[in-house]
Amino acid sequence: MSDRGFFISLEGIDGSGKSTLKEGLMKEMGQTHPVVGIREPGGTIVSEKIRDMLLDARNSGIMGRTEALLYAAARSQVVEEVVRPALGRGKIVIADRFMDSTVAYQGYGRGLDLQLLIDLNRICTGGLYPDLTLYLDIDPLKAYRRRLHEQPDRLEQEGLEFQVRVRAGYLKLAATEPRIHQLDASQNQQQLLDEALRLIYAGLEIGE
Amino acid sequence: MSDRGFFISLEGIDGSGKSTLKEGLMKEMGQTHPVVGIREPGGTIVSEKIRDMLLDARNSGIMGRTEALLYAAARSQVVEEVVRPALGRGKIVIADRFMDSTVAYQGYGRGLDLQLLIDLNRICTGGLYPDLTLYLDIDPLKAYRRRLHEQPDRLEQEGLEFQVRVRAGYLKLAATEPRIHQLDASQNQQQLLDEALRLIYAGLEIGE
Repeated sequence: MSDRGFFISLEGIDGSGKSTLKEGLMKEMGQTHPVVGIREPGGTIVSEKIRDMLLDARNSGIMGRTEALLYAAARSQVVEEVVRPALGRGKIVIADRFMDSTVAYQGYGRGLDLQLLIDLNRICTGGLYPDLTLYLDIDPLKAYRRRLHEQPDRLEQEGLEFQVRVRAGYLKLAATEPRIHQLDASQNQQQLLDEALRLIYAGLEIGE
Repeated sequence: MSDRGFFISLEGIDGSGKSTLKEGLMKEMGQTHPVVGIREPGGTIVSEKIRDMLLDARNSGIMGRTEALLYAAARSQVVEEVVRPALGRGKIVIADRFMDSTVAYQGYGRGLDLQLLIDLNRICTGGLYPDLTLYLDIDPLKAYRRRLHEQPDRLEQEGLEFQVRVRAGYLKLAATEPRIHQLDASQNQQQLLDEALRLIYAGLEIGE
């Protein structure tokens, strides 16, 4: 690797297996590379406070546009406080959700203006986009069943139809953005990890 | 007045007398018109939480761009939850700070990119701008002395030089935006109130 790191984001609907894949990637890649993991929208003191506000089911009065701006605020802080410094030190950064979540959830899911969200992503990242994005595609019903044992938070309460719209958004993004690679999230964990690692190492070689 | 209300914002550096003028306007205009007062960045449950986060001196790790996005989030919520419905019911809305504060404080004060802030104002207001803005111009040293007895919050701790830059920003905005009317905030309170009322009633007539 060169003097600049490599920035990977993991995307997909709730229950698509991003956290598990992230853990696998960090364990595997951590043996040979310095790796930093972030979780959107948290990861810094400021952004964790914003995350609490967003996930708190009692805050149901939050308007869609306000929500998008709060995610953008959290992202802005994480980018400047964590991602940019880590990349500057040549590290690999793996993000559980990043800018595509905004377009998929707030745009395709909730119907907010897509251009507004694209503008917001440009503003809050200061133009720092992932080098590679892995989109974990899964049928929302399958994903839902995976998570039945967990306590639903505000976002999950919105139900299956919402996740179907979000998935459709992700599929559209994956089809149009060369940065985004689509993976079948219903395959077994080891296969998924192997496929993800192949894509990442291919991307790293190009970046060298 | 027609079926749509009238939206007034008050702008100026800390200690310029916005709160006092707002109280005077609400008392005076409230006798003949339905008036709603808002305070930026607060005014709703969601935006008060954001305000607490912003004013908390311990949150000094907040980056400038994150701060601007948090103000935008609070503003977005106030616009949709309070301002737009009130205007729709033909009310007069008086805001203690609105979008020009972002440009003056984050732009001229902290040096954030002005175009970024203008884009952010467009996004968070959904294009709903004040009909009339009263900018209370005052020398920062005079304004500072007015407030010496109060406990400084995070924004005020940044000191006099910062306020000088913010004032310069406001003066530039007032010189270029026809919507913004500049008032001498060092005159006595009754004179200031009378001048503000004259400008507002002139604006209301045009709007009818």
